[in-house]
Parts: sequence; C-alpha cells; structure tokens
Amino acid sequence: MMSNSFIVFKNRAIKNIERISSKAKNQNIIFRPHFKTHQNIEVGELFRQAGISSISVSSLEMASFFANHSWNDILIAFPLDINEIAEIDKLAAKINLKVLITNEVHLKALEELENDLEFMIEVDAGNHRTGINFNNYEEIINLIKKSTKIPKANFAGIMAHFGNSYIARDDSQIVDIGIISMNRLVGLAGKIEKEIDNRIFISIGDTPTASVMNQFPNIHELRPGNFVYYDLMQLQIGSCKLSDVAALMKCSIVSKNKERKQIIIHGGAVHFSKEILDYKGVKTYGHLVEIEGDNWKLSESYLISLSQEHGIIQCVQADFDKYQIGDYVYIVPVHSCLTANLMKDKTILVG
Amino acid sequence: MMSNSFIVFKNRAIKNIERISSKAKNQNIIFRPHFKTHQNIEVGELFRQAGISSISVSSLEMASFFANHSWNDILIAFPLDINEIAEIDKLAAKINLKVLITNEVHLKALEELENDLEFMIEVDAGNHRTGINFNNYEEIINLIKKSTKIPKANFAGIMAHFGNSYIARDDSQIVDIGIISMNRLVGLAGKIEKEIDNRIFISIGDTPTASVMNQFPNIHELRPGNFVYYDLMQLQIGSCKLSDVAALMKCSIVSKNKERKQIIIHGGAVHFSKEILDYKGVKTYGHLVEIEGDNWKLSESYLISLSQEHGIIQCVQADFDKYQIGDYVYIVPVHSCLTANLMKDKTILVG
Repeated sequence: MMSNSFIVFKNRAIKNIERISSKAKNQNIIFRPHFKTHQNIEVGELFRQAGISSISVSSLEMASFFANHSWNDILIAFPLDINEIAEIDKLAAKINLKVLITNEVHLKALEELENDLEFMIEVDAGNHRTGINFNNYEEIINLIKKSTKIPKANFAGIMAHFGNSYIARDDSQIVDIGIISMNRLVGLAGKIEKEIDNRIFISIGDTPTASVMNQFPNIHELRPGNFVYYDLMQLQIGSCKLSDVAALMKCSIVSKNKERKQIIIHGGAVHFSKEILDYKGVKTYGHLVEIEGDNWKLSESYLISLSQEHGIIQCVQADFDKYQIGDYVYIVPVHSCLTANLMKDKTILVG
Repeated sequence: MMSNSFIVFKNRAIKNIERISSKAKNQNIIFRPHFKTHQNIEVGELFRQAGISSISVSSLEMASFFANHSWNDILIAFPLDINEIAEIDKLAAKINLKVLITNEVHLKALEELENDLEFMIEVDAGNHRTGINFNNYEEIINLIKKSTKIPKANFAGIMAHFGNSYIARDDSQIVDIGIISMNRLVGLAGKIEKEIDNRIFISIGDTPTASVMNQFPNIHELRPGNFVYYDLMQLQIGSCKLSDVAALMKCSIVSKNKERKQIIIHGGAVHFSKEILDYKGVKTYGHLVEIEGDNWKLSESYLISLSQEHGIIQCVQADFDKYQIGDYVYIVPVHSCLTANLMKDKTILVG
C-alpha cells in the first residue's frame, strides 16, 4: 500500500470541466485550459472527451510532453525564454504552437525561426508580474509593427493573466477585478485595432474570474487551469464550494502525540509543497476532509507543519480520537497545482 | 539550452563530505549520511568514494531506489508506516534494512515479518516532531522488552533528529542545543543499559550540530544530510560559510521590469519549492550569487516572489543593469533538500 497518493475524483473534475466549457461555448469563446495544474495524461483525456483541443502550458518541457500525447494546439503561457528558441522552432514544425513575448529581445529571437510561429503579447492588466503595462500603448504597438517584418512570426493577439484575482475574498471582489482588467484589455485592443485595422484577439485566464463571472464581452479566449481540481486557496477566495473540489491528498498516519493532540502523517513538503495559507485564523498547509461518498466535510484539524516527509496535523479532539496509526486521512491542499506537480507519479483517478 | 538546472559543484560537495566524514572517523563514530538531501546516484558515488557504505533515507521508496543502486545498509529514518510492512519485509530480505518505531502499533506490525529486520526507537530529545519523549523511560523500556518476543525484530538502539537546532542563529546556540539533546539521550541510554544489561547504540543527525560541533561523546552514529550542499537557511543558522555551499539554481532571465527593478526568471515554486526565509530583514525564497571561479559573493538581490514557474528577483540597481534577458543567474535556494527533490531530473554536476 502506498503511503500517500493524490486522489482525483473524476466525476467532480468532469463537472468542473463542463461548467467552464459550456460557459465559454455559450459566449462563443475559445476555452484553452491551462494544463500546468494537472500535467496528467488521463486528466487531459477528460478534457478531450469534453471537446477541448486547445491548451495552455507553462513551459516548453510541458508543451513537448503534451505534444507527444496528441495535443496539437498549445500556447506556452510563459514569457519566451530566448535560450530555447531552437527547440521551440523544432516543435513549431510539428504542432500549432504559440508563444508569449513581452519585449524587443523576444521579438528579435523570433528572427531565427525557420517554421511559422504565432506569438501573443503579454499585457499586464493589473497583476504586476510580467507583461507590458496596459498603459504602455506605444511599446505594444511598436512590437506589433516591427513583427510584420519578421517572416515567420505571426502576431496572434494580446493576453493577460489576472493573477490579482487571488487577493479577492468573495464573489464581488473577484468580479470587480475581472471587470477592471477586462476593460483595460478591451480598451487597449480598441486603440490597436484603430491603428492596424485588424481585429485584436484577447485571451484571459485565471480560475477565480472564470469560475464566478458569467459575462466576458469582447474576450475571445479563457485559459483557467486550477478549476479542474480547485483547492483550499480557491475555497478561501470564493471561486468554489467544497463540493467542487476534485482532488485530495491521501496520507497514512505514522504516529500520534497525545500531549500535543497531533497526528503525524507521511506527507510533507515533497508531497504537498510548502504553500501556506492564512485560513480562518490559522496558518495552514491543508485541512483535513471527512469524505462519505459525495458528502464531504471540512474539519477544523489542519496541517500545522511540514518538513521534507513529515506532516503534522493539529487535531480537534474528535479527529484525534477517531484516527489511529495506520489509518489514512484525506487532506485538501492549499494549492493543488503545486501538489499535483509533486505527486505526478502518484496520482490516482477514482469514481 | 535548459531554462533552469540545479548545479552541483562537485569539489565543494566532496570537501563537505570529507569534513564530516573525518570528524566522525576521528571519534570512531559511524557516519550514516542522509541521502534525502540529494537523492542522486552520482552524488551518492561521491560518498562511496569517501568510504561511506551506510546511509539514511526518509521513505521506503527512497530505500528501494538506493538499494537498486548497490547501497546495502539503509536506515529509513522516518516512523514506520505499517501499511508498507510487506514491502519492507521484502526489501529486508535483500539488504541490511533498519526502520524506526515510536509506539506499540509499530511493534505489533513487526510480528508479520518473515525476514530479520533491525529497528531503532525514535526519541524526542527536544525537537517535538516525532519520537517518544526522552523522559518517557517506561514507554521506551516497555517497547524494548516486548520486542524480545518478536522473532524477526531486533532492537538496534535509539535515535533522534535534533531538528530544533534549526532555530539557532549562531555557533554557540547550535552547540547549546547539541549538548542538551545529546545529554538527554546519553542519560536515557544509561538507564536502559542498567536495566537490560546491554550497550545502547545512539544515533543522532542534523546538519547544524554535525557541522559546528567537534565532540560527540558516547554517540555512535551521525546522520546529517543537508551539509553536502548547504543553503541559505544553513548560512543563516551559522552551519556554513558561502564557500561551503555546493549547489545553486541556474535560471534564465525571461523578462525585466524597469519601474519595479525586477528580473523575472524561469524558476518558480516547481523548481525552488516555496520554502521562505526571513533573511537579514527580507522574506526571501533565495538570494542571487555572483560566481567568479571559486570566489562567490552573495548579492542583495533576492527572490521576492514565486508562482508556479515564475520567479521574481527584486534587484539592487547594479544587478538590474548587469543582467539582460536571456542571461543566466545563479541563486542559492533557501532549502536545498526541497530544491534538489524538485530538480531531480535537472541536476548537473560540474567542477
């Protein structure tokens, strides 16, 4: 028996996929889910069965991985690494590959291409991680104009990640961030359209706005990723309910400590990752979940500490009494993308 | 060219191995390094070349991995998972395997063994993670006595991890914790010896005390792991100097932001892990290092933020001006064990 595994509840994942997929379809928006969350071939097939054929990934390595599993329309939603241009060029010969650029160095690297490659310009619509600020119109139009002289590089639109939606703590805050960010992109696209006389394709992507909002006017593509599993962070943001969460860690109990009311599991930083969250007054790496069929309950027992392989659960009395050494517990991780990445070889689909 | 890699500076790692190895040899102490830090066959061979044949690991999975690479004397320095007893039994038929127990449930599981297996009792000497408190003499002697009735289970001594040495911030604090913890174990062993009339083997292991202390009276085995690479956390604790650090992340720069004086690298939570450290007044995931041959300098530019694949370096002006998009930077991670685990397939030995 495995000490720990990452359990994906297939029916819940399918429901999550269908929810966002029909939302996009109803508005004639392309749904290009971010596969960085699961990085899993079987879960990828659930998307394929829902009619999805365009995907996002966050590295060339991941693009190659999915290209090898018959995914032929892939956006590397991460600023171009010019050191990888030769490999990108090779992959572009095989599939419909798109990259992101954010500056002239990136653009210059595209001159080396031997195969056609689409590129998008990443715009910072308020997240302040990467991308050109939406106000820097001159910089953006300059890149677009210069790109017309690069034979193999084809401008395919602007894109943004609304990562600042992660600071939201309820629906209305998510919606506010979504509205402001979309507005910035649509305004920018309008200006560009006026100058180059061509429709500008707009792609956005983050789980909170994609989950909560219903209207994406003038947006052409949605790229959320986390929604397929959700997690404790998304519960806190308000993107989902516990009944939407589709993946849990399952760990065996290796020890108990009566004085400290702690259960020690085989599940540490190399399984959960060390993403920490202030959740209802405690700093936690994950919360215990009681599962009875499809009826789940979030317990107040939580992961108070993680070392490399050990996880310490601070228990309420009822949980401490209920669980014995050798039992398995289910835990909703703080950030399912990072947990899924660490548990790649120990992911099990059930249900 | 790879976007990122984990570079191991072989000569430095060899020096680190030799330093602790001769310290142990001089005192007739067994050196059983913890291989969870590197989990790397090539680095393992550096240990073998230094005459080491006994190792520690933190999971059955890791034990099987190293057993498959000719390591025949392995301690799983993690509380027994009774769900794995059948696989442990199988591995015990092939190599000299040792496990840890901390309670009667563990002991009972050993009744199922078909092959001889040594076990140690984990003692909590002040770290308060796992193990039986050093004061609970009755509980410990009870386990030892009961174990004599289990045909295949052989008591091999007591062990502790002095994880509380990680709160130290200089040599004298490390030494204090080491002295107090060793004293507790030696006192406990004396009591046990009196009752069972047999020498009690004592094994300890943590990088700070193994690095800084020189005297380990009445201790029979040392099990540090991190010392082979060290990292920013060990620099802060005072276990090492920058000239001892033997592994760095090497990441390509994909973007720069002038207003915020930030460099964005392809190196995120799936490369560094999200271990964070309060280091000289800033919360950091790693610090930039300038390397010129063997002359390294810690820069004040540091990793202020990590998302899944992005790392954002907050730069001092000189670094911001010096580095261009497409350049590589070297970064000392906060916790090299977690970084090495994530970079298993992208570890490169140089020098």
